[in-house]
Amino acid sequence: MITLYELRGADRDFLFSPFCWRVRTALAFKGLDFDSEPVCFTDKELIAFSGQGAVPVIVDGEDQLHDSVAIFRHLDKKYPQKPLLGDALAEGRAMALDNLTTSLLRMGLVKMLALRVYHQIADKDKAYFRETREKMMGTTLEAFCNEEEGMAVLTPGLNILEALFSKQPYLDGDAPAGADFLMLGHCMWAYTLGCTPWDNHPSFKRWFDTLLADYESKKGVVKRV
Amino acid sequence: MITLYELRGADRDFLFSPFCWRVRTALAFKGLDFDSEPVCFTDKELIAFSGQGAVPVIVDGEDQLHDSVAIFRHLDKKYPQKPLLGDALAEGRAMALDNLTTSLLRMGLVKMLALRVYHQIADKDKAYFRETREKMMGTTLEAFCNEEEGMAVLTPGLNILEALFSKQPYLDGDAPAGADFLMLGHCMWAYTLGCTPWDNHPSFKRWFDTLLADYESKKGVVKRV
Repeated sequence: MITLYELRGADRDFLFSPFCWRVRTALAFKGLDFDSEPVCFTDKELIAFSGQGAVPVIVDGEDQLHDSVAIFRHLDKKYPQKPLLGDALAEGRAMALDNLTTSLLRMGLVKMLALRVYHQIADKDKAYFRETREKMMGTTLEAFCNEEEGMAVLTPGLNILEALFSKQPYLDGDAPAGADFLMLGHCMWAYTLGCTPWDNHPSFKRWFDTLLADYESKKGVVKRV
Repeated sequence: MITLYELRGADRDFLFSPFCWRVRTALAFKGLDFDSEPVCFTDKELIAFSGQGAVPVIVDGEDQLHDSVAIFRHLDKKYPQKPLLGDALAEGRAMALDNLTTSLLRMGLVKMLALRVYHQIADKDKAYFRETREKMMGTTLEAFCNEEEGMAVLTPGLNILEALFSKQPYLDGDAPAGADFLMLGHCMWAYTLGCTPWDNHPSFKRWFDTLLADYESKKGVVKRV
């Protein structure tokens, strides 16, 4: 059995991390059962065995891995059905798509979501989260986060992705695979925190709603704020 | 022998079309020899056999094809060495990368290049080019084109692609393939018309210079304005 260590909020069942959602949706896609071990940001000792401090981490028999792409690679090797990454050419392109879609989405989403994250995490995590994020932002969470500004930053990226999804149903072509789940993680982060900024982008919305419905048909309804 | 019908300027040897450059660089990459048939925009009768009016068109024995992606697909099927598109998953991702990189580059490049094109094409093409482009632009070539504005429109896309090429050498991963040649076409359009707007983006510049040098090592120096 696979164990997935994944980030939790104050509520043990509230899962919001974009990188953990990548692995969770990919496991469901491949039809792999797993145990969940939800951990707080500051529960570093629970994943110390992985040699680093960030989730997602999976333990799969003798193997333990961290980093969503390394986990995808492991899953494809051990469980070849429904490949996430594919051959070297397909994987190179998946990495390029991850890089581009992250550039198009992440900054706007951070501006929209970081303060929502702060309100959902355990009290013991709040100082850690504020300190690490404010160092990256160069200012306070409250000064950096602004949902209207975030939406303005996000809109060019939403428009570009809307044009893409009006031409093909998935990043991976006619059926979803690894590149879709890498991007879906960012969107699950927004969705669980109560934001669906793609609501006025019908092709993007269709892409998200289809992948969410497929996940929920396998794993049950996703808990949201 | 393959024959490539490709767009020419007033100078028969001046080749600038982004879509034709995709096919020309892909043929060189696969090591396939070809004859060039340069045609003007208004030489529609020379490619009428293809059932439509746009280059690139290739004739390859019994087969004749138009549209750069359809040509890539044909080349991979008939000449499997050095695949351009790859399997269905890899091809789906190549189409997504084409869509995203075109969104990131094309509008800014049109603003920078369309008037340069106008000055390089044959006199008999000028009325056709002006009429078709002004219909798309909704204004005159002179009102639409502005190199400074074009550079401003292009810069966010250049920054996003710079971040990508600082992480991996090619869109296709560690070695170039079809997704790189689809994007390279846009850049050859700029390069042949005398523009290299990526000069201050060192990873993007390395990507372009490497692909150009590889092409020139096989097919000789590219004619520029």
